[in-house]
Amino acid sequence: MRIRVDYRASLSLVGSVLKYLAVPLLFPLGIALAYGETVAPFLVTMTVTFLLGVGLERLDADPDLRAREGFLMVALTWFAVALVGAIPYLVEAHGVPGLLAPVAPASTLGSPANALFESMSGFTTTGATVVGDISFDTHTRGVMMWRQLTQWLGGMGIVVLAVAILPELSVGGAQLMDAEAPGPGIEKLTPRIAETARALWGAYLGFTVLQALLLYGLNVVGMAPNMTAYNAVAHALTTMPTGGFSPEARSIEAFSAAVQWVIIPFMVAAGTNFALFWHVLTGEPKRLLRDSEFKFYVGILATLTAVLAAVLFAGPGFATGVPPGGSTYDLTYLEQVRDAAIGHVEPALRHAAFQVVSIVTTTGYASTDFNAWSPLAQYVLLFAMFIGGSAGSTGGGIKIVRWYVILKSIRRELFTTSHPDAVRPVRLAGRPVDERAIRGIYAFTVLYIVIFFVAAALLFFDSLRVEQSLSVLEAMSIAATSIGNVGPAFGFAGPMGGYTSLSDLSKLFMVALMWFGRLEIIPVLVLFTPEYWRR
Amino acid sequence: MRIRVDYRASLSLVGSVLKYLAVPLLFPLGIALAYGETVAPFLVTMTVTFLLGVGLERLDADPDLRAREGFLMVALTWFAVALVGAIPYLVEAHGVPGLLAPVAPASTLGSPANALFESMSGFTTTGATVVGDISFDTHTRGVMMWRQLTQWLGGMGIVVLAVAILPELSVGGAQLMDAEAPGPGIEKLTPRIAETARALWGAYLGFTVLQALLLYGLNVVGMAPNMTAYNAVAHALTTMPTGGFSPEARSIEAFSAAVQWVIIPFMVAAGTNFALFWHVLTGEPKRLLRDSEFKFYVGILATLTAVLAAVLFAGPGFATGVPPGGSTYDLTYLEQVRDAAIGHVEPALRHAAFQVVSIVTTTGYASTDFNAWSPLAQYVLLFAMFIGGSAGSTGGGIKIVRWYVILKSIRRELFTTSHPDAVRPVRLAGRPVDERAIRGIYAFTVLYIVIFFVAAALLFFDSLRVEQSLSVLEAMSIAATSIGNVGPAFGFAGPMGGYTSLSDLSKLFMVALMWFGRLEIIPVLVLFTPEYWRR
Ligand SMILES: [K+]
Ligand SMILES: [K+]
Repeated sequence: MRIRVDYRASLSLVGSVLKYLAVPLLFPLGIALAYGETVAPFLVTMTVTFLLGVGLERLDADPDLRAREGFLMVALTWFAVALVGAIPYLVEAHGVPGLLAPVAPASTLGSPANALFESMSGFTTTGATVVGDISFDTHTRGVMMWRQLTQWLGGMGIVVLAVAILPELSVGGAQLMDAEAPGPGIEKLTPRIAETARALWGAYLGFTVLQALLLYGLNVVGMAPNMTAYNAVAHALTTMPTGGFSPEARSIEAFSAAVQWVIIPFMVAAGTNFALFWHVLTGEPKRLLRDSEFKFYVGILATLTAVLAAVLFAGPGFATGVPPGGSTYDLTYLEQVRDAAIGHVEPALRHAAFQVVSIVTTTGYASTDFNAWSPLAQYVLLFAMFIGGSAGSTGGGIKIVRWYVILKSIRRELFTTSHPDAVRPVRLAGRPVDERAIRGIYAFTVLYIVIFFVAAALLFFDSLRVEQSLSVLEAMSIAATSIGNVGPAFGFAGPMGGYTSLSDLSKLFMVALMWFGRLEIIPVLVLFTPEYWRR
Repeated sequence: MRIRVDYRASLSLVGSVLKYLAVPLLFPLGIALAYGETVAPFLVTMTVTFLLGVGLERLDADPDLRAREGFLMVALTWFAVALVGAIPYLVEAHGVPGLLAPVAPASTLGSPANALFESMSGFTTTGATVVGDISFDTHTRGVMMWRQLTQWLGGMGIVVLAVAILPELSVGGAQLMDAEAPGPGIEKLTPRIAETARALWGAYLGFTVLQALLLYGLNVVGMAPNMTAYNAVAHALTTMPTGGFSPEARSIEAFSAAVQWVIIPFMVAAGTNFALFWHVLTGEPKRLLRDSEFKFYVGILATLTAVLAAVLFAGPGFATGVPPGGSTYDLTYLEQVRDAAIGHVEPALRHAAFQVVSIVTTTGYASTDFNAWSPLAQYVLLFAMFIGGSAGSTGGGIKIVRWYVILKSIRRELFTTSHPDAVRPVRLAGRPVDERAIRGIYAFTVLYIVIFFVAAALLFFDSLRVEQSLSVLEAMSIAATSIGNVGPAFGFAGPMGGYTSLSDLSKLFMVALMWFGRLEIIPVLVLFTPEYWRR
């Protein structure tokens, strides 16, 4: 039995990605220089990634990427980038001499498991964090900007993946994006894939710049005192990739209501199929509003926001009792937030819209600590974790387009039950969806839910091993947030908390879940089947 | 637009079922006579059901059952039978004069919503209860036996449905049962459907009689002092239908370990495809052991039992703290149970096997109050609620055969991802499963999970309306147990508790969930689509 997968070709292309990763590292390097901080974390990482990249590239001078090598390349790229991306955290915590002769690290990110966790959480745009003390007392502004940048780079990678690579491998939501994009079809936006990708990066970059300017503008006009230029850039870097990292320990709660309102539409955009913005730019904005996935997406956001706003407005939205992990909560503050929402439209609507959009798009920012919300409100958010962004967006989760096709398919099933002889295809944007694609969507969705259930059980087991007592809601939400690349969970890992207290084994398990989830499970899972490696 | 559904034919057949329902009412009537209790509940019900049945039958003297009328007939039958089956509870609570001039009822079952709930819970073999005080101080032995009998009748109905009706309507697991039964095929067991049904009723009746004899035998030999003849019959009537009602307030915990061990294999049998017992009886027992669904089923039971037994044995299985709804718990007793299991094989294994088998088969009996178990153990049980019995059994839930086909289909999906040109059918017992059937299974499974999620949210909302505070686990488990026809949930509705404290609206919602779940959703849901009623 001859090994058929040309892993050298895959590794060579992973090498190219690693080599070029040295370039974006210039940005946090510049930040560090500007603030007079140590540049060692970035110099070390640039050297390692460049040399490793060049070395891997040499394995195959002229790599030929067929489908199977594509899967391997995509999965390994995210893994390799996450490994290299952990280096700045380790260097910051230990110092260069400390790496050679280890001493007690200066931060939680000094542990290799934590550094890898933070890096994978960044590149998969998850936003789950193990930075115990999110402050510039413990961390440099350069390294904290690197943390933000990993998400922006990861989001860009997802756009490339969705546009240029997954359709070639004919998996994931890619077939659907094809069927979905009305008229020109996504791969026909521009004649060549490279140009398509550039067009979408344009939208991605454009929104990022616009958001940074708007956020800083709020500061200039006095509506956001703490939205410094640093903060404006840092948050712009983690919104479009639906990332959710923030250099503020209390996420977006740290900023004014104006900032929260401005971030909402950018999160909505980040969860939209980027191909649709192309229509807007080319003077056909109606195509956006006519798009069935977009309408479904906006409908879900509006419905869940209305439900949650009503709950917060009516009162039972915020609980009065001590939330789990009580001592870290400022109850007086929470009661103020609660009372401000009860019977008041603006705060109720703002927190509802912010949190629904943040969770559905899998961004993971928080405008308030929803741990203090009532079980009903928390349940709505847990439910929202399974929805996900649109195809062709940076959002994770099961994804809107899959739910749309599933609901249409279930309606068809009901129809053919009472009309057994009828033949009725499921249509998306007027075109019939291939039955094999429908089956693939179902398989993905059920697999996703099964992995979620089993992952929660495994997290439970491991927590018992280390005598940590998870609640059912904590275990389930950690599993859902990891595979959906959302970020926050409930309880200690809530939006103002983190995953520091989990065991290293659980953290590495979450790393795997984030990796699987970000790449839509199947392209990674297939690497673990013997059939993949056989001729 | 002409209404095409011949609802008169459906109603006429519902009438026939109602008419014959008068016959089994003779059994609780006899019990009541034997114990010198009032026979009014049964005389009233027999009269009503007979007259109503005869009246409905007259709507169509020669009903012709096509597919659409079949759906209507099946859904209406369960509903009508549940309505009529509630009468004994109402008559018992109010007395005959009290029905005419209402006074305060003598029991919780005097409320129409409660009586309908208990009756639907019985006929759908769910076993969720609103009998607040399960004791012979409040209820007659006759009415308590009627409660047990509704489950036995409901289970018999499910066997008929699975064997004789659903295949005709080509929905549900029925196509699969066909593919599944090796060799003769289920509809070919005997040449005519009526004979097939009789053969399966034979197995159903045979196991019931055998169980009653064995349970009473334990009493005779002194191994079960409180397993009276009444109790032996009562529990035999609710095991084979995977019902779970018990005239004992503390379910099977009230009996000796010997009784618990004896009940386990009968629950396993109740969750097995009854067609397989036919092979055993006809001298081909190997067919049972060779059956892929049966092997999968036994594998799941064994795996989950091993996991749970290990947890109970190791210690963290039982929590020491006060469980939710604390005051009703005998903590000293629970600590005894916990300590008896830690480090002791027999009790750990017994409770694990009993509870896993009870929940997976959707029976719902309890050998101990799993509310006092640790979150991990509870999570395993919540997970188990979604598995369900085999096709052609009386078990509810998503059902083993669907999970089996789904897992095989996901494996196929992984295979075709790396081998895009390969054509590989999903096989069940060596025969390819129709792709349309696979799609139907996926549609059902996702629909089931979505309904579960939405139902939990609706239960939450209604609980807030009446200022009852459900936990996330309570709301989710109530939804899962209702649609899966399991019975107990967690919290106040745990195995020793009940649903009395829910609002009437929530109870009626659960009635709908039990009804939908028992009939495998689609045959009922289809009645609510406009297309069904159109030509
Ligand atoms: K995220
Ligand atoms: K049951």
